Amino acid sequence: MGDLAELRKVLVLYTGGTIGMKKNHQGVLVPVPDVFTNKLKSCQELNDPDLARIYSVRNHELITKVSSCSKVIAYQVREYHPLLDSCNMTPKEWVIIAKNIEENYNEFDGFVVLNGTDTLAFTSSALSFMFKNLHKPIVVTGSMIPIFENPSDAKNNILSSLVFASISDIPEVCVFFANKLMRGNRVRKLATSSIDCFDSPNYPILAETGFHCRIHRHYILPKNDRSALLVHTCLSESVGILYMFPTLSRTQLLSFLEPTLDGVVLMTFGAGNIPSHRQDLLDVLRNAVGRGVTVVSVTQCIKGSVSFSYETGKCMEEIGIIPCYDMTVEAAYAKLVVVCGMTRHSEERAELMRQVFRGEMTIQH
Amino acid sequence: MGDLAELRKVLVLYTGGTIGMKKNHQGVLVPVPDVFTNKLKSCQELNDPDLARIYSVRNHELITKVSSCSKVIAYQVREYHPLLDSCNMTPKEWVIIAKNIEENYNEFDGFVVLNGTDTLAFTSSALSFMFKNLHKPIVVTGSMIPIFENPSDAKNNILSSLVFASISDIPEVCVFFANKLMRGNRVRKLATSSIDCFDSPNYPILAETGFHCRIHRHYILPKNDRSALLVHTCLSESVGILYMFPTLSRTQLLSFLEPTLDGVVLMTFGAGNIPSHRQDLLDVLRNAVGRGVTVVSVTQCIKGSVSFSYETGKCMEEIGIIPCYDMTVEAAYAKLVVVCGMTRHSEERAELMRQVFRGEMTIQH
Amino acid sequence: MGDLAELRKVLVLYTGGTIGMKKNHQGVLVPVPDVFTNKLKSCQELNDPDLARIYSVRNHELITKVSSCSKVIAYQVREYHPLLDSCNMTPKEWVIIAKNIEENYNEFDGFVVLNGTDTLAFTSSALSFMFKNLHKPIVVTGSMIPIFENPSDAKNNILSSLVFASISDIPEVCVFFANKLMRGNRVRKLATSSIDCFDSPNYPILAETGFHCRIHRHYILPKNDRSALLVHTCLSESVGILYMFPTLSRTQLLSFLEPTLDGVVLMTFGAGNIPSHRQDLLDVLRNAVGRGVTVVSVTQCIKGSVSFSYETGKCMEEIGIIPCYDMTVEAAYAKLVVVCGMTRHSEERAELMRQVFRGEMTIQH
Amino acid sequence: MGDLAELRKVLVLYTGGTIGMKKNHQGVLVPVPDVFTNKLKSCQELNDPDLARIYSVRNHELITKVSSCSKVIAYQVREYHPLLDSCNMTPKEWVIIAKNIEENYNEFDGFVVLNGTDTLAFTSSALSFMFKNLHKPIVVTGSMIPIFENPSDAKNNILSSLVFASISDIPEVCVFFANKLMRGNRVRKLATSSIDCFDSPNYPILAETGFHCRIHRHYILPKNDRSALLVHTCLSESVGILYMFPTLSRTQLLSFLEPTLDGVVLMTFGAGNIPSHRQDLLDVLRNAVGRGVTVVSVTQCIKGSVSFSYETGKCMEEIGIIPCYDMTVEAAYAKLVVVCGMTRHSEERAELMRQVFRGEMTIQH
Repeated sequence: MGDLAELRKVLVLYTGGTIGMKKNHQGVLVPVPDVFTNKLKSCQELNDPDLARIYSVRNHELITKVSSCSKVIAYQVREYHPLLDSCNMTPKEWVIIAKNIEENYNEFDGFVVLNGTDTLAFTSSALSFMFKNLHKPIVVTGSMIPIFENPSDAKNNILSSLVFASISDIPEVCVFFANKLMRGNRVRKLATSSIDCFDSPNYPILAETGFHCRIHRHYILPKNDRSALLVHTCLSESVGILYMFPTLSRTQLLSFLEPTLDGVVLMTFGAGNIPSHRQDLLDVLRNAVGRGVTVVSVTQCIKGSVSFSYETGKCMEEIGIIPCYDMTVEAAYAKLVVVCGMTRHSEERAELMRQVFRGEMTIQH
Repeated sequence: MGDLAELRKVLVLYTGGTIGMKKNHQGVLVPVPDVFTNKLKSCQELNDPDLARIYSVRNHELITKVSSCSKVIAYQVREYHPLLDSCNMTPKEWVIIAKNIEENYNEFDGFVVLNGTDTLAFTSSALSFMFKNLHKPIVVTGSMIPIFENPSDAKNNILSSLVFASISDIPEVCVFFANKLMRGNRVRKLATSSIDCFDSPNYPILAETGFHCRIHRHYILPKNDRSALLVHTCLSESVGILYMFPTLSRTQLLSFLEPTLDGVVLMTFGAGNIPSHRQDLLDVLRNAVGRGVTVVSVTQCIKGSVSFSYETGKCMEEIGIIPCYDMTVEAAYAKLVVVCGMTRHSEERAELMRQVFRGEMTIQH
Repeated sequence: MGDLAELRKVLVLYTGGTIGMKKNHQGVLVPVPDVFTNKLKSCQELNDPDLARIYSVRNHELITKVSSCSKVIAYQVREYHPLLDSCNMTPKEWVIIAKNIEENYNEFDGFVVLNGTDTLAFTSSALSFMFKNLHKPIVVTGSMIPIFENPSDAKNNILSSLVFASISDIPEVCVFFANKLMRGNRVRKLATSSIDCFDSPNYPILAETGFHCRIHRHYILPKNDRSALLVHTCLSESVGILYMFPTLSRTQLLSFLEPTLDGVVLMTFGAGNIPSHRQDLLDVLRNAVGRGVTVVSVTQCIKGSVSFSYETGKCMEEIGIIPCYDMTVEAAYAKLVVVCGMTRHSEERAELMRQVFRGEMTIQH
Repeated sequence: MGDLAELRKVLVLYTGGTIGMKKNHQGVLVPVPDVFTNKLKSCQELNDPDLARIYSVRNHELITKVSSCSKVIAYQVREYHPLLDSCNMTPKEWVIIAKNIEENYNEFDGFVVLNGTDTLAFTSSALSFMFKNLHKPIVVTGSMIPIFENPSDAKNNILSSLVFASISDIPEVCVFFANKLMRGNRVRKLATSSIDCFDSPNYPILAETGFHCRIHRHYILPKNDRSALLVHTCLSESVGILYMFPTLSRTQLLSFLEPTLDGVVLMTFGAGNIPSHRQDLLDVLRNAVGRGVTVVSVTQCIKGSVSFSYETGKCMEEIGIIPCYDMTVEAAYAKLVVVCGMTRHSEERAELMRQVFRGEMTIQH
């Protein structure tokens, strides 16, 4: 048996999403339970009966091998019940995913999370902040076309995600989609219907698949082998996102920042600006910060960073609003959800928000 | 005098923005009144004393000529008092700009509006909907670096905008920025600090400057010479934008859709999805539509269109939410502001929102 | 049986290329005969046994159906013997391909040509000029990774090419690669190893696959239903490509333009420039044109067009060198190969080169 | 005088090119001597009379200051006689430029070379290899539109180049164009007429200008302070470029590789392939290598690297053809010109071509 290729074990969490949907009678895509794993089993690329025999895998295991890699990957699929539409995912679901990974952390070499594309960037951002001292890859993926359709991007995304999940020196939560591996808290869904719909506008991609697979190791976070894994599963569910617009009223802002809110991500104009002449809005924000709401700022733009070079930006700083620099809105929201779960003290929350946790932002001076 | 090149007259409305700012003692950029026009006058590219003499322009007029064009452009600059930071612009300011153009419509061949970049896409979208049967170009521009700095993108943007404003067969509200002319209601500011920060993700650009200036005429709206100009200056100030996020609470949504709200643009996940399991949110939305609030949907993605292929999307349609297809959030907001000013009847508003006014959306089936 | 979906018949010519290669003992990819069609037969996406039974296809036929299209596609694969490495393809092979299509023109609804990626742009350009009055689609494709590898882009490229080859109103030679359908004489291989390595830098793409398949019909050539198909299979094999560089010697140029040469594509600097001070080179070119060599000019740049705005460009015109505007080098070469096969008169050749045949260039003034 | 900003001295070599051209009577751009420096003197952005007085610069010096930088830049312009069209530049001109810089190396803090855009990538590549142990920046630039036209990209390119030439820790030959600073031996002119026509397809850009100027220091070569500058001015003029095409004849190849040729850059298909079935061509190449011609290989593609994964690539290696990996054709040609000037021994030449000199290639295994 000494000649056998090395075996890697990966756990696949199938939470739901387009990847496993089928069209119903009205032609609308709906989730269908208990058929996905069998479909994977029947796909040549994703399950090889010959390998299954050679490696005597158990009945509930699938096994495959990619050409560019010497290793064989055995994997199990855990389907969620009920299947989740990604629009319906909340911090509660993130906790379930994180706990599932934590419970199986030692048994597997890596993890793949299948998630709908609509909130995939939220999920991957959240997981990146929930796992501290990660030593194994967690790859979040999905597809634009169900695996039951022909053609579909599902098989390629699953297969490549399995490969990256089996490479031990990618100790990050990543997203794989359409030939690109990206940092999980840097991705955004930029297009509604293209196959290649995710990108990482403010950070280089981590790896590319193609005729050769190119891993850009210097962009990947270093592994911390000395410290034990820590999973933050205490999350705040009282965090919001507010998009700035010209006629935002005092009442709208005031009621949005409701008494029970822990934190809010303001999506501000350009490099972090809000209407500076609107004393009413500034007062509401100042009061909110004063009573302990953590208010952070990201830009409405896709590329670039908030900064304080303008009169209108300066007033943000004075009020106590925290700049998130070049973080995505999804990452800022998820970080706030995690940070507000870590401590109830607003000064600590502010301090934590200013720190770089998992390569999620580049601080500009 | 028969040999003189043809003269075009352009009116420049300088509303404010980075283009005319200066750094104060703390190094923060602030607007400074009554210096901008003199600066333009002293710039060789923007004002040619020889031409001024030949064409005997009046004292308050500037005059210039670009190499690629046979015409000479004489222009006046009207500075706003006070100067507006683009963050502080609201429908009130859009009305002032529109009225200024309307009052001077017959005296000039075209118009240039200088606006801060942060809300430039809102302004250009709004103007596009406010002017019906436009026969002359209105070019909105600005700059990332003040004209008082060296180097600056201001001169190039002003000069090229003057050129396009003097071309009679571009009967559109456009945006010129960094070598590109784009449809005004299709642009977005995609980057916080690059010189080339605007793009038109869902519609081709209208013209490019370079060694040659290339105008793509088949993408430009046709001119309607038969109908008289109509300017809509009755605008609603009760329109909002709400960005979907996983933990949006019923209370937040309810209070955001305050009784006096005319309409709201929902920035939905992917191709137009919201949390379909959240019956509480759906009920609030249904009630809002029921009592006459116009609720429309755009995507959080940069590229692509909302559609109803998913279970979660279907429920939007049933509730009465209107899809804005591939419209930008700025255009959807501005269109709603204009449409809600045109009629008080919610059925008419819905009907108008579904129509294509100025090439602002591509309806997908 | 009236309920069966409409059947389309496609002929697939498998000429060789990476798509059907296997690694030999040294890990080098080599063509392997007589295994490709069986591999296709065994791929679920590419051959459906249930459909085969329902439609009672013959033994040598494969049959498949894509989800987005109501039609069923039955196809035959003709493998070339020997298989061709794309580096070894010449006009002789283009004639074989064209004749194979011509012989089967009436029996099939469309054609797919599998070609190695290295010279795919040459093949697709040549076929576009060889077929006049084409009424059916010819889709050229290939893959970056062999179909025998896992994962591979081969299945997706074949499947989507079959779909476009079955759409009757695409009467063009096109290239499909990695989610994009492009005009055959406009494509270039821009990257050596990315999956998405082809692009059409000077013409819009014709269609995109994704969650929806979007066909941009206004960019597709109109069908000429009145005229009969004409296939030009008399090609010149005496056409060359010469890349300008600073120390090109008179001797090199002279011997390159050997007596038997019919035509040459000069890859010139920028917008069509060559060293104007080099009277020796200009004399050699003038003499070549004088004795009947057709000399045409394309740019070394990827994007843009040759023109004559510079002193150095002007001298090209005087010598009788024909500008190919924004044609790719592959298209200019293939067009010259076809044109020099059509007539022996240099004036007619020049005249033909100046005409737009199949949307291959945009004439700039 | 202690309050004066620090002064940097830059030497500008104006070799010719579009940047200083004027239209003649036929509307054709031609070089015009002895007017360029006066034009610069009269440009506000490029010459500030107030600073000239304060710093008492000499008559032939110009002086300017950019807003984003605390330093003042005094510079002299040396105009070449005659002015060179970039199409006419050869290694002889590169030697003149290099010697001019060497002669003035100690007197100035940095150097700007104005070169026509058509062969700018050749010039910047050559200079990068000619200067060993460079401690000061050499910035090559030009413009798409003459400085005498309105508008023009000339002023912006000159001004930003002056700034980068005054930053002491960029010890590289770079190219600045349209808001991007790039490594000199990595650039290519990718478009014939866009303002933003240069790019660096296989290496990240070194700096971007914009609202902020961002220098990516980790991509810039480290400074070698210990070693003295060495300028290689002994260059070979017997180096060629040959673009592969399907019907290249034995005679053409044979005569191109004329007896006196030192080296040739083969522009090969895809990842480094040539027609492997053409034993006649392989024999000619083998003989050429045998008699001491250095034959190197780059790809015809814009992005990516030559490698030897195919049967057709393998034969290249056996013949003794040297892979240039992801080098541009301009860099490979210029390196060969420099290397063939360094030694007459073909083994040493081969060895030198395999080494990375100035970050010009990324070796792939």
